[in-house]
Formats: sequence, C-alpha cells, structure tokens
Amino acid sequence: MYNPQLNAQGELIHLLTTEGLPRRILHQILDKAAEFVSGGELVNQKFADLAGTSVFNLFFENSTRTRTTFEIAAKRLSADVSSLNIQASSTAKGETLLDTVHNLEAMGANLFVVRHSESGAAHLIAKHVKPGIAVVNAGDGRHAHPTQAMLDMFTIRHYKGDFTNLRIAIVGDVLHSRVARSQIHALSTLGCPDIRVIAPKTLLPTGVEQLGVHVYHDMAEGLKDVDVVAMLRLQNERMAGAYLPSTQEFFKYYGLTPEKLALAKPDAIVMHPGPMNRGVEIDSAVADGDQAVILPQVTFGIAVRMAVLSIVTANQKGLL
Amino acid sequence: MYNPQLNAQGELIHLLTTEGLPRRILHQILDKAAEFVSGGELVNQKFADLAGTSVFNLFFENSTRTRTTFEIAAKRLSADVSSLNIQASSTAKGETLLDTVHNLEAMGANLFVVRHSESGAAHLIAKHVKPGIAVVNAGDGRHAHPTQAMLDMFTIRHYKGDFTNLRIAIVGDVLHSRVARSQIHALSTLGCPDIRVIAPKTLLPTGVEQLGVHVYHDMAEGLKDVDVVAMLRLQNERMAGAYLPSTQEFFKYYGLTPEKLALAKPDAIVMHPGPMNRGVEIDSAVADGDQAVILPQVTFGIAVRMAVLSIVTANQKGLL
Amino acid sequence: MYNPQLNAQGELIHLLTTEGLPRRILHQILDKAAEFVSGGELVNQKFADLAGTSVFNLFFENSTRTRTTFEIAAKRLSADVSSLNIQASSTAKGETLLDTVHNLEAMGANLFVVRHSESGAAHLIAKHVKPGIAVVNAGDGRHAHPTQAMLDMFTIRHYKGDFTNLRIAIVGDVLHSRVARSQIHALSTLGCPDIRVIAPKTLLPTGVEQLGVHVYHDMAEGLKDVDVVAMLRLQNERMAGAYLPSTQEFFKYYGLTPEKLALAKPDAIVMHPGPMNRGVEIDSAVADGDQAVILPQVTFGIAVRMAVLSIVTANQKGLL
Repeated sequence: MYNPQLNAQGELIHLLTTEGLPRRILHQILDKAAEFVSGGELVNQKFADLAGTSVFNLFFENSTRTRTTFEIAAKRLSADVSSLNIQASSTAKGETLLDTVHNLEAMGANLFVVRHSESGAAHLIAKHVKPGIAVVNAGDGRHAHPTQAMLDMFTIRHYKGDFTNLRIAIVGDVLHSRVARSQIHALSTLGCPDIRVIAPKTLLPTGVEQLGVHVYHDMAEGLKDVDVVAMLRLQNERMAGAYLPSTQEFFKYYGLTPEKLALAKPDAIVMHPGPMNRGVEIDSAVADGDQAVILPQVTFGIAVRMAVLSIVTANQKGLL
Repeated sequence: MYNPQLNAQGELIHLLTTEGLPRRILHQILDKAAEFVSGGELVNQKFADLAGTSVFNLFFENSTRTRTTFEIAAKRLSADVSSLNIQASSTAKGETLLDTVHNLEAMGANLFVVRHSESGAAHLIAKHVKPGIAVVNAGDGRHAHPTQAMLDMFTIRHYKGDFTNLRIAIVGDVLHSRVARSQIHALSTLGCPDIRVIAPKTLLPTGVEQLGVHVYHDMAEGLKDVDVVAMLRLQNERMAGAYLPSTQEFFKYYGLTPEKLALAKPDAIVMHPGPMNRGVEIDSAVADGDQAVILPQVTFGIAVRMAVLSIVTANQKGLL
Repeated sequence: MYNPQLNAQGELIHLLTTEGLPRRILHQILDKAAEFVSGGELVNQKFADLAGTSVFNLFFENSTRTRTTFEIAAKRLSADVSSLNIQASSTAKGETLLDTVHNLEAMGANLFVVRHSESGAAHLIAKHVKPGIAVVNAGDGRHAHPTQAMLDMFTIRHYKGDFTNLRIAIVGDVLHSRVARSQIHALSTLGCPDIRVIAPKTLLPTGVEQLGVHVYHDMAEGLKDVDVVAMLRLQNERMAGAYLPSTQEFFKYYGLTPEKLALAKPDAIVMHPGPMNRGVEIDSAVADGDQAVILPQVTFGIAVRMAVLSIVTANQKGLL
C-alpha cells in the first residue's frame, strides 16, 4: 500500500501520522532519539545534522509550547529556523495554504513543521511540496500528533524497557484527542498487548474498539494493574456544555488522584502531554509525585523531535 | 550630483531607491545575486559574507513576507538578525524614529533594513546613521521598493537575457505603487527601450509620462507584443471607493486573463510581487500557468537581498 | 549570611540584585565587560563563551528594549536564544510560573533571563531551578534591575575612573524605581561617598535615608557640584493622579534643563536608562548635549549583559 511518509526504499521522508508506520521506523526514531539523551538529560552539545538547512515552523493554530520545542530541536541540530504564526483566516481556502507553502519553498525552505486545526493539513502539504522537502506534522485537528506519541513511546521504553508485556491506560477526552489516536497506533505497532481507554461515553469516538483497544468507563476497573497511565489534557473549550456536566464532576470520576493511581501497579508511571489542568484531569499530588514522568517527557520530546528532523532530512537528501 | 547611496569612490553603501543608481551598480547587484543561484534554485549552502554582522529589521509597517525574506537572506549570509515590529504610533515624531535608530546603533547594529509607511524614512535614517552602518530600504510609503524592483530585474534578465530589446508592460495600480516606481527607474537605467504602464486614469500618477513610459488605458493595446507583463498588487484599501468602481469591474478591464495574455508575445513572462489577489488583478489560470514566473521571483528575491546585504556591508567596511 | 546569588566558593551563579553583592563581584562584572568594549564601542566580533548554551528570555512584563539587549548580548556570545513573552494572566499563580520554568528546564535551558512585574519573581525562580542553571534578573517589580545598575556603574567608571571621590545625584521617581534601588546598592558597595536622591516627597519611599543616601527635594541644592546626574524615567502611569500634579509641573521643578545642569560640576555626566520622555524628566538640549552619555550607556549595557551571562554560565558549569 502506498504510504506518503515513505520513499520507494521504505525510508521515512515525512512524519505525518503514526498510523501505518512500520515497526522498524518507530524503532529507528526511538533509537536515534536515544543518541541525544544521556542519563535522562539532553546531551549538552550541538549537532550538525541540520547545518545549512532552513526549517519553517508553520503554525496555523497557536501553540507556543510545541513551537518552542521544535525550535529548540532544530537549533540543537544547527538548522536555521523561522517561525510563522499564520492566522487561520488568511488561509481559509486550501489554495491559499498551498500558495503560502510554495512561496516558502521558493525562499529555500527544506523542512516544514506544520500545526493546523484542520485534519489532513500536513498530508495536503506533503502531497504538494517539491521532492527533497520534508513535512513534519505537529498536530492536525483531531487527527494526529505523531511527535507527541513518539515521545510518549520513548518515555515508556525508557522506564519500562519493552512494550510487549505492558498494560497501558489512556485516560480522558479521547474523542477530541489527536494525541490518543497517535498513541494507540504507535502502541499497537510496537506490540503492546493491552491498550485501554478510560473515558465517559460522551468523550469516546464511535467504534473506538476497532482500533484494538479495551474500553472502560470506570477508573477503578480500567486502571487495575496497569504499567502506564497516559492522561489526556482536557481542552478548555470542552470544559462546559454538551460533553461534560462540570470540571468538578469530571475530576470526581476521571481525575487522577493518589487513591485511583493506587489501583495501578506500584511502579506504574504517569504521563501527561502538558500543560496540565491541575484539579481537573490530574491532582497535584500525582502531578508532582514520584510516579509522574511528565518533565522527563518534555526532555525526551526534544530528543524525539531532533531524531525525526534528522531522519527525514537525511532521507530527503538521499532523494535528490 | 551627490547621491547618499554611494560613497566617495562611487560604491554602494546604502540601497534606498533605484532612482539615480548608475547602471554598473545595478549590474553589480544582479551579478552578485547570480552567485547565489544555480539552476534556478538557491545555492544550498551558507555563506560567511555577514558573519559577525548584526542586522536589524526595522518594520514600522507590518509585512511578514518581506521581513521573512530579509531574515532568510541575512541568515544565509551568517548574520545575527533581530526583527522589530514597531508601532507607528510610538514613532509619530521623526525625533523618536531617530532615537530608536541611535539606540540600536549603540547596541552594535551594523545594518538596518527599514520598512516604513512614510516616503523618505529610509533616506532620513541613512542620513543620520554613523559611518560604517548600512541602510536598506524595504519599502517606504509610495516612494520606493528597490529590492523588489531588483529581483524583478534579475527575473527578467534570467528569462530574457538582456534589457535593450524588450517591451515591458506594468499593469495595475501604478498610482499607489512603490514597486512600479522602482521598476521604471531600474528598467530605464538598464536600457529597456519600451516601458509601458497600463492602468485606469484614476490609478496613474499625474505626469507619469515624464518618467519615460508609454501610457495605456486599454489592455488590448498595451499588452500587444510585450515580452514581460509585470502585474501590480491591488491594495485592499483601494478596492472600493473613489479609485475603483468595484473589484469585478477592475478584473473585467485590467485583470490578466489567458485571453488578454495571448496578445503578448507567445514567450512573454508574467511577474507579480505577491501576494496575489486571484480573480482581482490576475486569473488563476495565468497565475498557475506556464508563463508565470512568480515563484522564481521569490527565489531570486532571496538571492538579490543577499547580494544587496553583502555589497553594502563590504563597502561600509571599506569606509572604516 | 546565605546569599542565593553566590555558590559555596563565593562565585556569582545568579544575578538577582546588586544588594549584598561583594565589591569583588561588582568589579569582576565591570572588568569582564571591559573586555567587550574597545574605544567606547563594542568589540566587533563574536565570542564563544556561551556556545552550546540555551538562553531563555522569560518576559512576563513587556519590554522590547531590554529583551533585545539581552538577545543581542547572548547572540554575541554564540548562545542559542529563545524569547517568550508570557501573559501575566497565565501565570497568576506562582505554581504555574514554576511549571513553566520546570518545563523549559526539561527542554534543555541553561540560563533564564527573567522580567516580571512582581518583586521577587527572579529570586523565586533561582530558588527552584536545578543546579547548573543560572537566573539573571532583568527587572522585577519595584525591587531590582541589577544589569541596568551595573551598566550605569560601568558608565561612571568609564568616564570618572573611580567611585571613591564622587558625588552622584539620582533624580526623579525614586519611589517606583527598581533602577534607583539597584544603583544605590551598587554605588554604596563600590565606595561612593555621596549618593543623593532628588525627588518630590510623593515620589520617595519611606525611610530611603536608611539606604545611606542624602535626600533633596530641591534640584538647585541637590545638583550642586555633583559629578554624575542619573535621571530616572517617569513611568507613563504615574504621570497623572495622586503622585504628580502634572507633567509640566514636574518638568518645572525636576526636569533636567541646561540651567539646572549648570549647577553640577562642569564635567558632570548625565545618564538616563531610556527611553526618555523629552520635556518631562529631561530637556532635549540636555539629552542631546555634550554632557549626556545616554547612548554610550546603551553600548555598555550590551557589554555588561555579556559579562554577566558569561560569568554566571562559567560558574554554573563549575558546579556540575
């Protein structure tokens, strides 16, 4: 099957989604990222992998945090980085989005990091860029957020070693979460035998079981004996209205407290993509507790983004 | 005659306008830019021409696009680049504008790229900076936009080889266009024998013929047998009111369609400074057609800006 | 006494305030800064002191000017610099401020430059960062602005050679000025025998005499025979209301005019932290006159910030 992320030799040339990526590619990203980490910290030096390369961060949806991590990753690899915050309004038509991309191509761009509120935006751009130019999806609509998922995979591997005997629970607003989708695809491919999602019915997509996950509506059941708890962020705009009665109600049933976490394995780790809503999806006692690996996730996020940028750049150069 | 752009040896030390620049300087810019282009693409490496040089983009008028091209050009030459978007309000008095400039000089600035809504702003700054500091005009009021004109000259030379036997039509809102003014001066100096402007009477400056151009109000007449069609962008604020009946009406008479373009020479090229208003001044069939060289213009724009930054920096260093 | 700015060896690892810093540290900063200045100008080259170091400018209070000077200083030392303007609203709780800091630490930050509207913010951050990470205060509330004070010290030493026989007047809104506080502490430590503050009673903090200064309410008396006049900026929000009758009234009594300046020593220098309110706290004839050293202050400000960044980085590396 044709996969726009891979070239004819099966090498990664764009990172758009974890869905459909072969296990060897996921391992390649994790192994490459490991070269940038030492003793749980970033290796304190600059690398030349992207020297002479122009990276453009195209953020059609605002995210200082994700944009900053990509900027740091690119600079640590010696790239020249330009970040553009683009109003959604000026790109209402797909044509204009591609006009913007073609203009930046003409300015000498080698790699686009794309964040967009519409699902499929990064795919659309990858389809239309010239050969030799890489696209990395930094989150598109509800669809995918592959670098977040891969940093989660790195974190799990760092603490648990292997995926093939793990029980993992993804908790919270799965319905609106591109992170959850990308995590589920990556975990499946990496051989995780028991992937659970825990959420109220209103926050689960229809047919989520078809992704190979086990569905729970009750934290006590879903967290039982898990090795990893992957919390999702509750978006502000979901916090009132049709999906949720109230944030207090949500916290009562789905917020991760020390009591609920005690149901997981004693050495279970707690992940969160940040920024956290303390007291909504997670209790501060857990967020700041011994089992939380939320700050290491941030560190590993830089390493994983460095790895992705390095790999797609090297493979695109092979194309030319 | 005294020309503030040249030093006593007749070398370019500021680029403020194409008006009054000798032909040898225009050729120097084009030749230098050609060193940064190979096979129609930017040479894929960094240059050291501006290593250790601090470039400040002073944008008193917002323009993400032009600012980005100057940032890229400066970074490709290894400069340190700082970009400041400055509210017009805080510089209402000329005194404050110069205070800002003198402060940045004191911070170690070596080169200012200036965009300002008032004609003459870049000249004013060039007049007051210390010896050794270069000023490049990135557009001032309705006055001049010399790097845009020079990238257009580069594009014409790239596709047509020589200026001395060309027929060129500049189409659209000449009245408000600093691009048109700078193009006309450059084309005259480079020896273009037939420079035409095509526009409704309301969008032509009084006495435009004195610049040595031929004036047309009818596209069918003006485009006949031209080698180059240089479209101008219709500014949003002109699109309704005293100047134009409506954008549809404008498109009907002055929009570049395949039918109108057919009146030009078969190998005529179509230029546009971007961003395009498709369906207003240009039809998408032309914008995306074989004769359009609009994306190569963007690429050459980086090369020309690199050339200008490199030349004025080298000549200013000679001053010290 | 424990000083969070110094390590166990008494070396500077954070710069938070000039208060309580030993004289040898102040001299170290001034001497290091002198290495970056030659003939009154910045040495025109890049230095490698911060190569491979990630500097984050955390500006919780907007200040393009101060942020730019730190960016320039860090880039001249070959650092990678990221600047974040952070809305005060998103950090209303101290907890969130520290969450932000810990996230940036996890991204590989080596040094934070912090500007915050609340006094003590930089201290709070310095207390909570990991060993090896430096914090430099770029202004916190009414408390301290140590790099501004140190560039003023550099300027005084540059023009006057020594502090131990100087008479210095600080003029204006002392009450709201973190600059004045930091100047007074630095001048005291450096051995200045006569530090004066000149201000209306409404713009003086209670008990200011306890800092060892002489208080004047009258310019004619206070400026008599001084070697240095350090003007303070009048903040816009103080210009009307309870503190001042009107800006005209303020200028009449406390604005620095050539007539008032004539009361100081003939070779007295005039300093101002900028940006100046001409006609409010200073007359243009003084601001642009021979005795003003306001633009050299800007140049020395880059050198002093380079010195501080270099020193704390070197000492923090010793920690690891």
